Amino acid sequence: MDPDDVALALESVPLAERHQAWQRIKHANRLDVLVEMRGESRQLLLKQLDDDEIEALFSDVDAEDLLDIADSLPERLVDLAFKQMDTKQRTYYQQGAVYDEDEVGRWVDHDLLIASQTIRVAEAIKLFKRSDAPYTDVIYLVNRIGRWVGCVRIQALLNANGHEPVSSLMTEDYPFLDATTDVVKAAETLEREEYVALPVIDENHLLLGRFHSGLALEAARLELEAQQMSNAGLNEESDLFAPVKRSAATRGMWLGINLLTAFLASAFISIFEATLEQVVALAVLMPIVASMGGIAGSQTLTLIVRGLALGQITRANLSSLLNKEMKVGGLNGVFWSVIIGGVVLWWFQSPMLGVVIALAIIVNILMAALSGVLIPVILDKLKIDPALSGSVILTTVTDIAGFVAFLGLGTLLLL
Amino acid sequence: MDPDDVALALESVPLAERHQAWQRIKHANRLDVLVEMRGESRQLLLKQLDDDEIEALFSDVDAEDLLDIADSLPERLVDLAFKQMDTKQRTYYQQGAVYDEDEVGRWVDHDLLIASQTIRVAEAIKLFKRSDAPYTDVIYLVNRIGRWVGCVRIQALLNANGHEPVSSLMTEDYPFLDATTDVVKAAETLEREEYVALPVIDENHLLLGRFHSGLALEAARLELEAQQMSNAGLNEESDLFAPVKRSAATRGMWLGINLLTAFLASAFISIFEATLEQVVALAVLMPIVASMGGIAGSQTLTLIVRGLALGQITRANLSSLLNKEMKVGGLNGVFWSVIIGGVVLWWFQSPMLGVVIALAIIVNILMAALSGVLIPVILDKLKIDPALSGSVILTTVTDIAGFVAFLGLGTLLLL
Repeated sequence: MDPDDVALALESVPLAERHQAWQRIKHANRLDVLVEMRGESRQLLLKQLDDDEIEALFSDVDAEDLLDIADSLPERLVDLAFKQMDTKQRTYYQQGAVYDEDEVGRWVDHDLLIASQTIRVAEAIKLFKRSDAPYTDVIYLVNRIGRWVGCVRIQALLNANGHEPVSSLMTEDYPFLDATTDVVKAAETLEREEYVALPVIDENHLLLGRFHSGLALEAARLELEAQQMSNAGLNEESDLFAPVKRSAATRGMWLGINLLTAFLASAFISIFEATLEQVVALAVLMPIVASMGGIAGSQTLTLIVRGLALGQITRANLSSLLNKEMKVGGLNGVFWSVIIGGVVLWWFQSPMLGVVIALAIIVNILMAALSGVLIPVILDKLKIDPALSGSVILTTVTDIAGFVAFLGLGTLLLL
Repeated sequence: MDPDDVALALESVPLAERHQAWQRIKHANRLDVLVEMRGESRQLLLKQLDDDEIEALFSDVDAEDLLDIADSLPERLVDLAFKQMDTKQRTYYQQGAVYDEDEVGRWVDHDLLIASQTIRVAEAIKLFKRSDAPYTDVIYLVNRIGRWVGCVRIQALLNANGHEPVSSLMTEDYPFLDATTDVVKAAETLEREEYVALPVIDENHLLLGRFHSGLALEAARLELEAQQMSNAGLNEESDLFAPVKRSAATRGMWLGINLLTAFLASAFISIFEATLEQVVALAVLMPIVASMGGIAGSQTLTLIVRGLALGQITRANLSSLLNKEMKVGGLNGVFWSVIIGGVVLWWFQSPMLGVVIALAIIVNILMAALSGVLIPVILDKLKIDPALSGSVILTTVTDIAGFVAFLGLGTLLLL
């Protein structure tokens, strides 16, 4: 069984039995399993281990492992692990720790073929023949002080004369990644340029290591998971069986934010208490108006958020986009308002109530289209990620607009 | 500029000006750009081109391109493109077209080094030296009838004697992908096994081609986009500037489904019309109860959907999971019911109304936890993707439970 599989299996064991399950894993595999675990699961497990156990566990930790898990470890344990590494691994760790979790500098692989730019082809071939690192289709050349100067393809080496200097075979304009590049962008570069791995370079052009397609696929997989979880205000590092108090606390935050928006909507409803008292059907129907606006708005929002992420939305096309979304909203507004108005007329036997809800639906769907375009564009301008906060703001707007339009029109036309 | 960039730029031009922008693209690049475009954008563009233009465009289409775009082309154009391909490309196309869009058999790359298992090392090295295909670190060996028999690493070739048969150097247990494997799973295999590419095999063990990390990264990227869009009932192939009628129609479906659930909730509210008439504050506050349940439920649902996707939820741990989620719900229910009860008491100066909403919040958050676990598990058992339909069903349940609990308790305690 792979360490990833063991880690997954361990995370699916309830907390009370997890320590026992951990003990059944072979000592030699434990570190790999720990590294593969989700952050919260790892924290919870380490809490159950005593210091001797942890020290033994970290006895052959390397820089890549430690960089992976450092963020979910207490300072004390990071120090303990750091002390047990050799000089080379310590240097790698220090080089990587400078960068954020989502910067490619922290994702660097050190298992690459590096050679001085002064060696000859025959030596380079010898180097390649002895290597068994995956993702190896080039040799990375550096100058005397470790600056990256270029890459030579294995095929180029094999087709050349053994006495030639390797530097004459360098692929022109070989792409590289700045260590501060976002890891998801780096993965896109790898895909687009059709490379197996690319050199990662710091601000002084020193070669930190490489970013290969295995890491790129891992980054893409984690991004997908993060995105699924963040839709519900959760973190991708969450443990399925996290302790009750801890889960309740992390989820409580999101509930609290939502509660504020719900109270805000209620405050707007309360303006129309007198109307509701007289026409109780308005209370029965008001969730329909709010939810149609919410759905229509989140459709527009989703399209715009994707457009922003892809860099497709510009000052030049914003107004035609708004225009188009308003037309789509208008068309859907009219269509559904006729249906809803008809159903309400039949249900409550009140033509005027049908007219009120039909008008409110049109108003709210138009409002939803407008907000669906403008909210993410404004958030993006303010450097706030519209994918995270856009939807909360949007549904607050469509709830309030829906209630006010429906109850306001009800007050005007039904009393 | 890369074809992907041109495609993105083209998609961000409003429809009316798009044909003009297309004309400015060099003829030689047009096919690549067309292939990179999103399905709907491609359809819209092709509608604006006349048959001669399309025929010229497809004059050097290859099987990979056509497999990519066939689903968004009318039958007539697929035929037109197919006729222009040579025999080899036609065979590739026919081999790939058997498989679904999300099966790896459709994602096959044919630019790989294939050799008969009977050749010697020196010949294999010659083959490698002449190749310039990316992702090449092995040679694929086939038998006389084209069945895949194994892979030989380039290093193994270089370290061997030129007279040796290559078949003696095959890597043992080299993994392969069945052509019906889901493409996202195939990408995970590539990541986990640390390979640059894996052979894709049909049910007769014939070598169809390979699945390399560039394709895997593309599949992962498209999966992320599909998932973002599907949250709002949209398709990842949607065009930012799709014609108004067309957009309105595709989005209308999702609005219609939502409308049914909203009417269902209203029907439940209407049971309590008499109560609402007497205590209008209930109408003001009822959205709060529903939305707190919705948020809490979608948190549980998200966690369970991820657990199901990772294979972490089993019969063995389901009851402890339900137990834990009910406890988290209980704790958050009690906490927030005290806060909300307090605010309502202060706002409406009615202790009993505070008690009613507090109890309703507890009931609905517990109901949300229960549904958040059971709905995705049941959907999964019924082979329905819980990531798609789970959230609609869940919010319908929490809306109804919220309204019934709150208005029901109000009827019992306030009248």
